[in-house]
Amino acid sequence: DPVAGKRKAAQCQVCHGFDGMGTNPEVPNIGGESEIYLIKQLRAFRDGTREDRMMSLVAKNLSDGDIRDLADYYGAIEITATVPQF
Amino acid sequence: DPVAGKRKAAQCQVCHGFDGMGTNPEVPNIGGESEIYLIKQLRAFRDGTREDRMMSLVAKNLSDGDIRDLADYYGAIEITATVPQF
Repeated sequence: DPVAGKRKAAQCQVCHGFDGMGTNPEVPNIGGESEIYLIKQLRAFRDGTREDRMMSLVAKNLSDGDIRDLADYYGAIEITATVPQF
Repeated sequence: DPVAGKRKAAQCQVCHGFDGMGTNPEVPNIGGESEIYLIKQLRAFRDGTREDRMMSLVAKNLSDGDIRDLADYYGAIEITATVPQF
């Protein structure tokens, strides 16, 4: 449910933005990532198979439903990519 | 060096595309990620602090120079994000 996900993204947007674009260089862009990838990473941070100072804390309290809603929301963002001419 | 990075991305683009957009749902979009984040993740896959069936293999053979060039290339891709109205 992306609408619930947007509500739950209030805590995420500090670093990831509501548009999924990282607000500082340490933070990845997550807008438009596939839901499968987002769910896998949030679960990995929650169960410790992936570690990050911030995300390990944030993910600890996320339920499966929270993870699905957040993935629905950020996954629904549409991104375009333009490759510069080198 | 993004030009060298584009050449080296020949192996990466199978999954990540030359535009950095994942070619299957298991694969993240890496176009437009910050170079700091890309370098940190590639080093983590190389030294094992982050694990992935595919990336752990790919990263094992990357030099620091390869990592910098690949981050230069994929980091130079410009992305835009459009948040759907819910």
